[in-house]
Amino acid sequence: MRHVYVNGDYLPETEARVSIFDRGFLFADGVYEVTLVLDGRLVDFSGHMARLRRSLGELDMPFSLAEEKLLEIHRELIERNQISEGLVYLQVTRGVADRDFNFPLKSTPNTVVLFTQKKSIVDSPLAARGQHVVTFDDLRWRRCDIKTVQLLYPSMAKMQAKAQGADDAWLVKDGFITEGSSSNAYIVTTDGTVVTRDLSTDILQGITREAVLLCAGSLQLRVEERPFTVEESENAAEAFSTSASGLVSPVVSINDKPIGAGKPGSITAHLRQLYLERKRASAI
Amino acid sequence: MRHVYVNGDYLPETEARVSIFDRGFLFADGVYEVTLVLDGRLVDFSGHMARLRRSLGELDMPFSLAEEKLLEIHRELIERNQISEGLVYLQVTRGVADRDFNFPLKSTPNTVVLFTQKKSIVDSPLAARGQHVVTFDDLRWRRCDIKTVQLLYPSMAKMQAKAQGADDAWLVKDGFITEGSSSNAYIVTTDGTVVTRDLSTDILQGITREAVLLCAGSLQLRVEERPFTVEESENAAEAFSTSASGLVSPVVSINDKPIGAGKPGSITAHLRQLYLERKRASAI
Repeated sequence: MRHVYVNGDYLPETEARVSIFDRGFLFADGVYEVTLVLDGRLVDFSGHMARLRRSLGELDMPFSLAEEKLLEIHRELIERNQISEGLVYLQVTRGVADRDFNFPLKSTPNTVVLFTQKKSIVDSPLAARGQHVVTFDDLRWRRCDIKTVQLLYPSMAKMQAKAQGADDAWLVKDGFITEGSSSNAYIVTTDGTVVTRDLSTDILQGITREAVLLCAGSLQLRVEERPFTVEESENAAEAFSTSASGLVSPVVSINDKPIGAGKPGSITAHLRQLYLERKRASAI
Repeated sequence: MRHVYVNGDYLPETEARVSIFDRGFLFADGVYEVTLVLDGRLVDFSGHMARLRRSLGELDMPFSLAEEKLLEIHRELIERNQISEGLVYLQVTRGVADRDFNFPLKSTPNTVVLFTQKKSIVDSPLAARGQHVVTFDDLRWRRCDIKTVQLLYPSMAKMQAKAQGADDAWLVKDGFITEGSSSNAYIVTTDGTVVTRDLSTDILQGITREAVLLCAGSLQLRVEERPFTVEESENAAEAFSTSASGLVSPVVSINDKPIGAGKPGSITAHLRQLYLERKRASAI
């Protein structure tokens, strides 16, 4: 039985509940982070906590739990659930109040929930064979830089992609790729340049994205942070996505058009390998 | 102590909980309806249930509870909580499953939550003095016709409006008003035409909207369903909003510009009165 954390208590997952008046449940008024666990240790923990604080700040959501305490909870859950490889999920909401579009008093205690997921992350069959992606209009709200639980459209897009026989969806706004349904999106051009969309309110500031761009620099790859079109993607030499749970994950076709040789690319493989080496070494 | 309904049980509100793995909590994967109660009876119940089924259908969310059973629960809650005037809130989510962007199995039981709110609806001070509204960019997702719990931006917009000394926000997309933060938006032009945005994926298909447009017809008013600009709104003779909880609610200024004489308009008042008469007569 998995044990989870809810507002100060460690509980069996079947007993872990929140009020029906939680603003996370009624208004999607909550933010989250997912931290990768490798060898039982946390990857980029401080990066995730910095982004959490940014999300909270953008939503004017008070939150007082110290990073040290959050680290302690993450580690306790890894220990209790014997997570060697997987994820720790953290969600913070604006707390419990009778339903009202107006925010509750600033003194309302947050709801804080954490749980683990045991997953095979490094030896992923999908990473070995490469993902098939299809593109859909990006219908999400216009503040995708804030990591809120308003995840219905990404979830719908992923289901629609599966219905078409693909593995995942890449989203398109005004003709340009924004990002994947739950990942950042990249292409490698035929001259070996790694291209990914520049940071704005249109995409999430990926923690893995930042680390992978540093890896690209170390590998002497040219990097361009700019919007790129669907057509440019379909004609790229390689393509891949990055996320905490997917690491660096090759894309082998976009809208049924094979990318390069139609198999995972070598630059993608190098980035994945270097990223993993670095994160294994720096995990805490 | 208010009693609420959660998945078959009537519970004191303090004991009403859902799993932290509820998709409503983790993915905002839920839809809702709010039904007005006048004289202890339900207004436009079948309209709300028809819209609920449409929302569920658009999200491919299975749901098996019969309308008759839902009516019974609504009435039981009105009875138990002695609601003469107020609201009944109903939320349906895709249920409980370990966190995954993929939808759970179709056989996963929905989460069904209902609760009441006692409110003074008819004798509203805001309706008497009229609302001050300010406009903000409409940053919501692009399927506002589906009544999901992704309500963070409307909630933020309302708070921003309050911070500016206004009562509410009207949202603007490409220069045209879409709707209010939790209502449909209308103007009355200087020639007496009632104008409200036409139905599309940009706005919610308001149950009150439909009824009020019928009232306008009965009052021999000309109605135009079309987009209208912020400037047109600011120069209108009257303005108002409609919703289940606000009925027909006059707007007396937009972006600090007084509408007409800067007080609730007479056409708005007639519409509110006729709407109330009809709904008192037809409530069940």
